[in-house]
Amino acid sequence: MVAHMNEEALSRTIESGEAWYFSRSRNALWRKGETSGQTQRVVEMRVDCDQDAVWIRVEQVGAACHTGRKSCFYRKVETGGGGPRLVSVDATRLFDPKAVYRK
Amino acid sequence: MVAHMNEEALSRTIESGEAWYFSRSRNALWRKGETSGQTQRVVEMRVDCDQDAVWIRVEQVGAACHTGRKSCFYRKVETGGGGPRLVSVDATRLFDPKAVYRK
Repeated sequence: MVAHMNEEALSRTIESGEAWYFSRSRNALWRKGETSGQTQRVVEMRVDCDQDAVWIRVEQVGAACHTGRKSCFYRKVETGGGGPRLVSVDATRLFDPKAVYRK
Repeated sequence: MVAHMNEEALSRTIESGEAWYFSRSRNALWRKGETSGQTQRVVEMRVDCDQDAVWIRVEQVGAACHTGRKSCFYRKVETGGGGPRLVSVDATRLFDPKAVYRK
């Protein structure tokens, strides 16, 4: 998955060992899984060369994607014959979003 | 590595099978490796759930990072004892940036 962090999200992630992000659309800090229960325990955290990107390897409870898939990247771009199109790969739902986000 | 694409960069990447990006600071399209020679051949391309992020697996000529490292994520955040600090991992330089970017 890809999400944004602000300074507070980064600090909380480092201090707690659980992934926190910042929602730009809701203008709010959020702890991954606070609604869905699909939390992330940080196993390893890296920063990139110019230190504006953070990569974290996590132990994921359930699934990372809000659609119920393990990963948000469950579709690939197929380019052979007839123009590019999306094909599902690894798209099994591990939870039902309607059940998990109803509260 | 993390970089941005605009519509044109995405189209060119799909059509050519080589990674193209868009530099927001230079406001210019760029083909990865056009200066450094460190090109990327696309092996697999995926999109995320809300289709605003692209993940590509590449066959990398040389190294992806402008510092000469294979990956831009060559430092990890260590949190045990004495506050968080960066520690190099997998930080061997595969090329000399001064030589590669001098042109």
